[in-house]
Amino acid sequence: MEPKFQELKKKLSEVSAINSAAAVLSWDQQVYMPPGGAEARGAAISTLEELGHVKFTAPETGKLIDETYAWAQGLGEDSFEASYLRAARRDYDKAVKLPAEFVGEFSRATSAAIDAWAKARANSDFKAFAPHLQKILDLNLRKAQIYGYKASPYDALLDLYEPGATKAMLEPIFKKLTEGLKPIIKEINARAGSVSNDIVKGDFDEQAQLALVNEIAGAIGYDFTRGRQDRSAHPFTTDFSVNDVRITTRTHRDYLPAAIYGSIHEAGHALYGQGTPKNFDFTPLAGGASLGVHESQSRFWENIVGRSLPFCRWLLPLLRKHFPGKFDKINAEELYVAVNRSAPSMIRVESDEVNYNLHIMLRFEIETALLEGKLKVADAPAFWNARMRDYFGITPAKDAEGILQDIHWSLGAMGYFPTYTLGNLISAQLAEKMNKDIPGWKNMPEKGDFAPILAWLRKHIHSQGRKYLPEQLLKRELGEGLKVEPFLHYIKDKYSKIYGF
Amino acid sequence: MEPKFQELKKKLSEVSAINSAAAVLSWDQQVYMPPGGAEARGAAISTLEELGHVKFTAPETGKLIDETYAWAQGLGEDSFEASYLRAARRDYDKAVKLPAEFVGEFSRATSAAIDAWAKARANSDFKAFAPHLQKILDLNLRKAQIYGYKASPYDALLDLYEPGATKAMLEPIFKKLTEGLKPIIKEINARAGSVSNDIVKGDFDEQAQLALVNEIAGAIGYDFTRGRQDRSAHPFTTDFSVNDVRITTRTHRDYLPAAIYGSIHEAGHALYGQGTPKNFDFTPLAGGASLGVHESQSRFWENIVGRSLPFCRWLLPLLRKHFPGKFDKINAEELYVAVNRSAPSMIRVESDEVNYNLHIMLRFEIETALLEGKLKVADAPAFWNARMRDYFGITPAKDAEGILQDIHWSLGAMGYFPTYTLGNLISAQLAEKMNKDIPGWKNMPEKGDFAPILAWLRKHIHSQGRKYLPEQLLKRELGEGLKVEPFLHYIKDKYSKIYGF
Repeated sequence: MEPKFQELKKKLSEVSAINSAAAVLSWDQQVYMPPGGAEARGAAISTLEELGHVKFTAPETGKLIDETYAWAQGLGEDSFEASYLRAARRDYDKAVKLPAEFVGEFSRATSAAIDAWAKARANSDFKAFAPHLQKILDLNLRKAQIYGYKASPYDALLDLYEPGATKAMLEPIFKKLTEGLKPIIKEINARAGSVSNDIVKGDFDEQAQLALVNEIAGAIGYDFTRGRQDRSAHPFTTDFSVNDVRITTRTHRDYLPAAIYGSIHEAGHALYGQGTPKNFDFTPLAGGASLGVHESQSRFWENIVGRSLPFCRWLLPLLRKHFPGKFDKINAEELYVAVNRSAPSMIRVESDEVNYNLHIMLRFEIETALLEGKLKVADAPAFWNARMRDYFGITPAKDAEGILQDIHWSLGAMGYFPTYTLGNLISAQLAEKMNKDIPGWKNMPEKGDFAPILAWLRKHIHSQGRKYLPEQLLKRELGEGLKVEPFLHYIKDKYSKIYGF
Repeated sequence: MEPKFQELKKKLSEVSAINSAAAVLSWDQQVYMPPGGAEARGAAISTLEELGHVKFTAPETGKLIDETYAWAQGLGEDSFEASYLRAARRDYDKAVKLPAEFVGEFSRATSAAIDAWAKARANSDFKAFAPHLQKILDLNLRKAQIYGYKASPYDALLDLYEPGATKAMLEPIFKKLTEGLKPIIKEINARAGSVSNDIVKGDFDEQAQLALVNEIAGAIGYDFTRGRQDRSAHPFTTDFSVNDVRITTRTHRDYLPAAIYGSIHEAGHALYGQGTPKNFDFTPLAGGASLGVHESQSRFWENIVGRSLPFCRWLLPLLRKHFPGKFDKINAEELYVAVNRSAPSMIRVESDEVNYNLHIMLRFEIETALLEGKLKVADAPAFWNARMRDYFGITPAKDAEGILQDIHWSLGAMGYFPTYTLGNLISAQLAEKMNKDIPGWKNMPEKGDFAPILAWLRKHIHSQGRKYLPEQLLKRELGEGLKVEPFLHYIKDKYSKIYGF
């Protein structure tokens, strides 16, 4: 059976090479490509995606999977071969449902939409983006029909990002979370004036910001010999291979945390990618268990580590080094409070960890309404703005800081946003488990000692790649499935101290 | 027949998209890729090249070419369709000879060699590169056997870069050129002390150099909305599409002309690419007639325009702007003399336009000797150094400034170097034709008026793409084939005035 398995591996490694190439083209498109290149780039990416899809879904792939599946499972559930075949079969069964011309059409639509979105956001012109959003919505509905679903088309899409999750499963989780957060937010807002972040506002040279975030990413363990950090409109992480995992960040000249925490967030994702075992590279086992689990890594580093007091104690001398004179009169406690200021925000990626999940709630509602035909694209900005008022008591002055703020829809992704909240929940579960496994881990960042934390994540999460489904992975490594309580407990404990309630 | 032609166009446009993707991966590899990414990148590029090759050489491609060829020729020799089919058949007949596994092996070997070359050059360690060179040599010999040749394996390789050229054709041309240059070089060397380039040496901030060369490239017509300029170890130009043609340059902190003329050279290539008609994009008509014709564009801008006195008059205020204080006491005539200083040089790309062709002579000799089995790889550095003494009276102190200086062999290219000299010869022929067609064109650069020159090149060269073979193109547009005299006349006229003989 071994030769057939090798044949399958060769085939899927070629598919991975094609996908890796498409990822490079997409990275370049978002980071360095001149505007004139967009049209041909769209065609090139579409061609690669179609080629990869055709090659992956060829009947011989299915045949090789069928022929080797039982043999591989016989080698033990946790073996490389058994895990490889489980992941390959999952992906194949999904992919084989999508006709090649649909994949091509989807890819052309998103290529055009990315460009249109960037322009629409720059001009705050939702109408210019609306036809693209409509097209993306229609294609997602067709996609949901192709995959099939029971209760809502949303379920078919959600499952692509968080295998096993459904709208019906999410609703009670969101409810519990929202109800747990509400009283906390109320307490915070009642003391809104007591915490300021003025000390992280001002005029920060952008080259110095880039030097700072490169230093921070390197310190927490991001390997620059196997990656690089650039700038893009929306920060992202992309894996070309285990040994080339790239991140991007953005800089706001007048607001330092955007670059710092954007960068730590992406580095958190990238540590997962760089931690993939070498023999998983260019196989279906490379990558994260799910987007939720992936997000648990970025949020863990960004918030639970990066916004802790010990981390701020380590960070302060770095700020003084990169911005001479600006932080001389600040102490670490003041920095800690400033980077944890909680207040309603227009922009999801700039939102604090308390309010953040309400941004996801809004997107969850708008996407389900669009997909279930309860909301028209033309009415979406009004829906968005109404929810902003309901949840946060604020209204976007323009769509650029409202419905046009996220790149996800133009990338074709609907049903993706909930994974952010799942990531927040899991990150708090990871921290609770670390409390048991690594005595004193929370104080280690103070001395720049991130290695034991990374080693724990490498062992329990990164090294598993896509061997297990998310719920399975959590149960194996944490001894429990998804839970809301650790996150609520973490938030309440932290913010009651900061805001004094 | 039209539907079959459309079918062929669709197929070849997919091949072009794959090749475009491979070009992006290769650009990234040389410009931004972290070192860890090399292995997977090699695999990804190989996969794309194999895919492109398999798709292009599929029997259906040949069948469609056969079925539409006569129909297309019936539409007139100069028609899009007739030219398309001629180029497609030429490429197909060549490509179909190469087995897919050979293409893959070649690609893997060159990926490894690029990395090995960069390290070997950094350490000046020829022995570390020798096994790679041997492998490249063996693969080139196999390639020559696959294509077939009459007199020398060199002919089969040369024909890939300069269709129709042979070693036997080049030898008398080189002889005439060398004998014409010898007395000029003798006169120059006898007056070696009379010309200095000290004013372009010193300490030039590298960011300022990049800003300068961006301004120069833009001024001569390079369109930054359809391209960009980055840094790499060896400057190059790469076309992802008609609307995304990128150049790279390098900066020497202590020697300004390296960046200026490296950049003008690559911009000259890129103007050719950006001048390709839009409907040639992703077809076999995109690209240059040959590497020799391509090089005629880069050398025309670099030397005939860029190293002229009117250009120096325009350049001087730019130098003063980007390097305040450094050029206050210099006049344009002094700058002109400095950038035209002629002296033996170790490095081909830093060599002046008089000595340059002897560097090509050396490479022509070493490559033919290697390919004809008259020289062993291990003995190549000694051969190189002996020829350097013969031609220039100088010996490289280390292989990094000798046999390891060029990237070409590691890219798999043998038989490529002569095209540089062909480019020099053609560039002088273009200038003679412009004398007749554009009165006073030589003085136009003084006022930054490059548009009439570019328009002439657009009309006579760029807009033709790959419609005609090089010799055919020259006869159509210049009314003559390749000639040595215009170049010799240009050199003698220019340097006798500069050196006073």
